[in-house]
Amino acid sequence: MPKAEETKAWIIEKTAPVFNRKGFTGTTLSDMEEATGLTKGSIYNNFVNKDEVALAVFDYNLAMVNNLVSAEMSKHTTAKGQLLAYVNVYGNDVLKRPFPEGGCPVLNTAVESDDTHPELRKKASAAITAWKNKIVSLIEKGKKDKEFRHSVNAEEVALTMVATIEGGIMVSKVTGRLNYLKTVMKSVEKMILDLE
Amino acid sequence: MPKAEETKAWIIEKTAPVFNRKGFTGTTLSDMEEATGLTKGSIYNNFVNKDEVALAVFDYNLAMVNNLVSAEMSKHTTAKGQLLAYVNVYGNDVLKRPFPEGGCPVLNTAVESDDTHPELRKKASAAITAWKNKIVSLIEKGKKDKEFRHSVNAEEVALTMVATIEGGIMVSKVTGRLNYLKTVMKSVEKMILDLE
Repeated sequence: MPKAEETKAWIIEKTAPVFNRKGFTGTTLSDMEEATGLTKGSIYNNFVNKDEVALAVFDYNLAMVNNLVSAEMSKHTTAKGQLLAYVNVYGNDVLKRPFPEGGCPVLNTAVESDDTHPELRKKASAAITAWKNKIVSLIEKGKKDKEFRHSVNAEEVALTMVATIEGGIMVSKVTGRLNYLKTVMKSVEKMILDLE
Repeated sequence: MPKAEETKAWIIEKTAPVFNRKGFTGTTLSDMEEATGLTKGSIYNNFVNKDEVALAVFDYNLAMVNNLVSAEMSKHTTAKGQLLAYVNVYGNDVLKRPFPEGGCPVLNTAVESDDTHPELRKKASAAITAWKNKIVSLIEKGKKDKEFRHSVNAEEVALTMVATIEGGIMVSKVTGRLNYLKTVMKSVEKMILDLE
């Protein structure tokens, strides 16, 4: 990797937890200098501005979440097994595991950016839509393979699953009760088993 | 109302939508001056600091939401009818109605404050817990009145309802698709009807 690319990757990796905990607005240049051990000049030699760092950081944090889910999903072949991968990931102390520090980057970025930062909002929106579409396609596969009832409304179930998981993370993080997320994920599990 | 109390109330009312849209960190003194038409001196003559304004604003925005729900709930006497009040409020273009500008203040405050602002976090956490407990007590009432099955796990349903509604608001706001929240609220309605 060329030196400049290495430095960019270093900046993204080191500031990713800071942006996810403190938000885009809350992350200062000092935070970025402290996290990277680099000077302002060095950081802005590699990125045009804080926005560009934050957009790259979002992709980095999202990839971390997607990799966790994909790894779990790859252990299964049925639609039900693959949908239950979400339960296995999020119902299993996810906020303590190799999950982005600061919680779900999609939730954090969506809520901060929806009224304030169009470019970050666009990325969070695309992540939500892609997640929803992934669940829709797994449900449609399950219907085709006769695992799931033909009458299941894939769009409704998919949106509800995404909303419930993200809301469960919010409730759990703000109250400091990790078992709340486990409880919510039990409902998601029932929702999936109810597709049969 | 004494003059000082009137000024405090004015500051809270005028800055409430700003804090809810831009967040605690994102709301600047200039924003507060612009929203209130008051000077820095006048604002900080009435509040110790921005934190004190933000805490009062949270209570104000939360009361707005709670009043909407209570007004709808008061039209019903059965546990089912009262639970369905949430569906009537949130499934009915809530983000366009006399709802706090910027969306759900509990969601916004929870996500921003969980890693950064202990006092705001405490308020958001208390709001979530009170909401969950309200649903639990409605479900227990419904069980006692034989409206709902005795086997219903009130805590699990209550946490899932709160998570699903809040997650639905997030998904809907970030994508700009109000119908997503309506779709998610259909699932919440089914969840309530399924308690019978």
